[in-house]
Amino acid sequence: MKIFRVNMSNLRTTIEDVPEEWNLLGGRALTSTIVSKEVDPTCHPLGSKNKLVFAPGLLTGTMAANSGRLSVGAKSPLTGGIKESNVGGTASQRLAKLGIKALIIEGMPADDKFYCLHVHKDGVNIKEETELLGKGNYEVINTILERYTENTGVITIGQAGEYKISCANISVKDPKGHIRSAGRGGLGAVMGSKRIKFITLDDNDGSGIDINDKDEFRKAARIFNKGLLNHPVSGDALPRYGTNVLVNILNEAGGLPTKNFRMGRFEGADNISGETMYENIMSRKGDTTHGCHVGCIIRCSQTYNDKDGNYLTSGFEYETIWGFGAGCMVDDLDLIAQADHLCDDVGLDTIEMSVTMQTAMEAGIIPFGDGPGILKLLNEVKEGTPLGRILGNGADFTGKAFAVTRVATVKGQGIPAYDPRSVKGIGITYTTTPMGADHTAGYAVATNILKVGGHVDPLQKEGQIELSRNLQIATAALDSAGLCIFVAFAVIDDESVSHAIIDMINAQYGINWTVDDWFNLGRYVLRTELDFNKAAGFTKKDDRLPEFFNEPIPPHNATWDFSDAELDQVFQM
Amino acid sequence: MKIFRVNMSNLRTTIEDVPEEWNLLGGRALTSTIVSKEVDPTCHPLGSKNKLVFAPGLLTGTMAANSGRLSVGAKSPLTGGIKESNVGGTASQRLAKLGIKALIIEGMPADDKFYCLHVHKDGVNIKEETELLGKGNYEVINTILERYTENTGVITIGQAGEYKISCANISVKDPKGHIRSAGRGGLGAVMGSKRIKFITLDDNDGSGIDINDKDEFRKAARIFNKGLLNHPVSGDALPRYGTNVLVNILNEAGGLPTKNFRMGRFEGADNISGETMYENIMSRKGDTTHGCHVGCIIRCSQTYNDKDGNYLTSGFEYETIWGFGAGCMVDDLDLIAQADHLCDDVGLDTIEMSVTMQTAMEAGIIPFGDGPGILKLLNEVKEGTPLGRILGNGADFTGKAFAVTRVATVKGQGIPAYDPRSVKGIGITYTTTPMGADHTAGYAVATNILKVGGHVDPLQKEGQIELSRNLQIATAALDSAGLCIFVAFAVIDDESVSHAIIDMINAQYGINWTVDDWFNLGRYVLRTELDFNKAAGFTKKDDRLPEFFNEPIPPHNATWDFSDAELDQVFQM
Repeated sequence: MKIFRVNMSNLRTTIEDVPEEWNLLGGRALTSTIVSKEVDPTCHPLGSKNKLVFAPGLLTGTMAANSGRLSVGAKSPLTGGIKESNVGGTASQRLAKLGIKALIIEGMPADDKFYCLHVHKDGVNIKEETELLGKGNYEVINTILERYTENTGVITIGQAGEYKISCANISVKDPKGHIRSAGRGGLGAVMGSKRIKFITLDDNDGSGIDINDKDEFRKAARIFNKGLLNHPVSGDALPRYGTNVLVNILNEAGGLPTKNFRMGRFEGADNISGETMYENIMSRKGDTTHGCHVGCIIRCSQTYNDKDGNYLTSGFEYETIWGFGAGCMVDDLDLIAQADHLCDDVGLDTIEMSVTMQTAMEAGIIPFGDGPGILKLLNEVKEGTPLGRILGNGADFTGKAFAVTRVATVKGQGIPAYDPRSVKGIGITYTTTPMGADHTAGYAVATNILKVGGHVDPLQKEGQIELSRNLQIATAALDSAGLCIFVAFAVIDDESVSHAIIDMINAQYGINWTVDDWFNLGRYVLRTELDFNKAAGFTKKDDRLPEFFNEPIPPHNATWDFSDAELDQVFQM
Repeated sequence: MKIFRVNMSNLRTTIEDVPEEWNLLGGRALTSTIVSKEVDPTCHPLGSKNKLVFAPGLLTGTMAANSGRLSVGAKSPLTGGIKESNVGGTASQRLAKLGIKALIIEGMPADDKFYCLHVHKDGVNIKEETELLGKGNYEVINTILERYTENTGVITIGQAGEYKISCANISVKDPKGHIRSAGRGGLGAVMGSKRIKFITLDDNDGSGIDINDKDEFRKAARIFNKGLLNHPVSGDALPRYGTNVLVNILNEAGGLPTKNFRMGRFEGADNISGETMYENIMSRKGDTTHGCHVGCIIRCSQTYNDKDGNYLTSGFEYETIWGFGAGCMVDDLDLIAQADHLCDDVGLDTIEMSVTMQTAMEAGIIPFGDGPGILKLLNEVKEGTPLGRILGNGADFTGKAFAVTRVATVKGQGIPAYDPRSVKGIGITYTTTPMGADHTAGYAVATNILKVGGHVDPLQKEGQIELSRNLQIATAALDSAGLCIFVAFAVIDDESVSHAIIDMINAQYGINWTVDDWFNLGRYVLRTELDFNKAAGFTKKDDRLPEFFNEPIPPHNATWDFSDAELDQVFQM
């Protein structure tokens, strides 16, 4: 495989051999290694010294189920720390099939022009782009499909990325032409700062993936498949209701943050639940289940139509529905779907935007419960008005603009859909992960609420630190393999699944890893990221929840009761 | 003396004895001690845990010349670190005469009401204020003079403080009814967060200041006076031209940052110079020289009228004229005076606002050179529009809103009127002072440019670290005495002046300090402040200039060439 490097300062591409020490790195392990090695931790995230790195995982491009995630890395303009955000869709497998271990974008054009990149087996073409500037992601994708073929992979930014605001995500076309997002941390702003509107990927005649021992690989892949399909979460709940199965579960558990983290239950929960969503999809002839990339067998995505049966959105996730829903006291699922569509089109992280909306409601810009107000404000972001610039830079920024002190962020990143007081394990992850508040970095909800991998009482402190630490390590390992985080349920509950993953890696690369070796890769990733953040100026003071989480949250009146010393133990590993 | 403490949560005042260890602290030494002792360094600066502390200096209220400065301290909403900002006017001496060692304001009202405080010999009255909400500082002061007497001291915030934006300063009525400002660090936002619109001070029947040995004090005070008047800077240049004498001097030195720090000389310098200003004042029947407080013998303030002889502004400083002038490429002194008036009225720090305007010009909001555009934008800040909220939160915030990477700040605070590449000593102060970029924290311009206290070549690295360190220590000592920083010129050049200061302190308090003891107080202040910032999460990474200062600045093509290791030596004291 090769490293493709694009220098936007001189508009040149080079194709480089993979340094030997990177051979067994992929996905997050590789993006975090490259960012750590090549980016000055103190640089301005939107300046020429930052780099944007795309890397498929170790297993991406193979027949391994759910292995088509793409890691995107850079110094984050939202957190100021290192960032890896991963995404499904059509990009990762095409990069892998082209033999591209990582695509590194560096420098910055001297002029104000925007460009597009076309990646193919012989290299990268860099062209000026004018037609699609100022356009949303749906129009970009549809236009590209006309310019090239339906098989073309697309990585794109909407207006938000062009504005270089910190809610800007990077979007990837999914197999149906819809949108998946590397959502968090403002990586779309980094792509905008490199002045790249979109990247197209043509994997025709790509060299493909070498598998050292194909039989062994196939054998392990079958066990892996079976494990995923046998698990009740990945085999049943997620395919049926999508991630939104969680609204009722979290509401019941008193961990559904409502009205900007004031309560743990939302009166309107039933109206926005996975079950309601399922009924709507069925009655409106949508699609209850499809995969975000070829080879996904969990298929948690869906197509959600409006009352007239017209396409509204897809990849309609629990965290989005929580954020614009319970968080904002809005119980209109169709309106939330419109907000989701708009965010996808403009290229905005729905979690950051929805925590921002809660902050804007706190500031009195619009009242809690004002669904149409949310759409109006999202249009301000789309238009790039001054108010839109404020909101589009996230919850912390909006809080500062309007002197709101009740802002739910860690390291400048909005806290997602699980209250850290009543689901304490996820609070440990929010505070300590180098990513800023991020549920996917160590999804303790699994063991706290879903009782996957045993049960750690969500309301008690006992066991949470170890749980979050182990999950953060395992997640870093999964992210490096290019595997979807939803394989974790089976990994945790079924030993044969983690062994199957290792067997596949061993069969592909001709090595003899143990599960421990793989988790050591996870530890290495975390250490690399923590070191970057420290060099960027982070201290333990950044591993804290905002002050207001000392308020008890109904119905359990749980408070955040971890001491600084306890939090500082998490990464004594 | 007593500590007056006002709790805005329960609207109660207490009068406390001064802890013994605070007896020999005053001004900055006392505000930084109290903030450090009583404020959680990690708290939200606009939350109920922050405190706002006012303290007259050790010599304030005596006949010592230029001793009427008031220190204001808090955790800064602009920098996130500890802040002391000091100001002349009518407040400090009245507090001292009332026997108030410090006025501490803590807590926060549970409701949305605004209040005013009336401080008198028996305590503090807290009343709801409605009439003056939303009004500018000039109207506040004029209305208060009607409510009380002309002798009433006034501390007030304009609309900016009510909005709690980070450019908000705290204004103090001067003896002429004009405005002096504790400008930097957003302390007006802290006062706004405590919901105090203004504080009136009635020193009738105050206990006054005890002087242990009045004869010795008088003797030393005469020597001090003479030293100030004999020095060419404090005795001649400042009274004649005000601080704006510096435009031509810095322009000549190539250290007048022009067009957002692109050049060190401004073509239009002559139009905005102190000499031009002097001519305008004379021909328009203004006032070329008056003191900002009773007992000031340097008298660097002035009254600047418009072409028709009507009052435009006063306390019209070099840094303001630099910022809206050379920084923004505006050479219209009358327009800059209008901007100064507007900032004083709305309660905005002119340095932060003018660096913000340069950033807004960088973003293309208005073009460089657009003077009327500046006034238009300042009115947006006054009105509290979304654009005004962006600009009103300072240069860093504005840069982030519009994705501008060329933003001249350290620790989030705008860099003032002396280019750190061509006046290297001041660059050391900008980077290392716990205050964020602040020329007054260690005014190396004195020795680099004015050749006070010898000469350290401004373009060479040699000697700058020691120079800045010594000046930072001496300044912290001066700020604790309540002395105006402009006594420093005489202190540095004339040993009898520093001895006179110590003799006054000794005579007042009945002690036997040496000059070294006094400087040790300065060292203690810096250590206290550095410790607070460290506990707030600051690291050495915060002691750096922005990336773009590696560009050479004409005419000398000087660059910023201090290594991290060199900067980290400054506080090895």
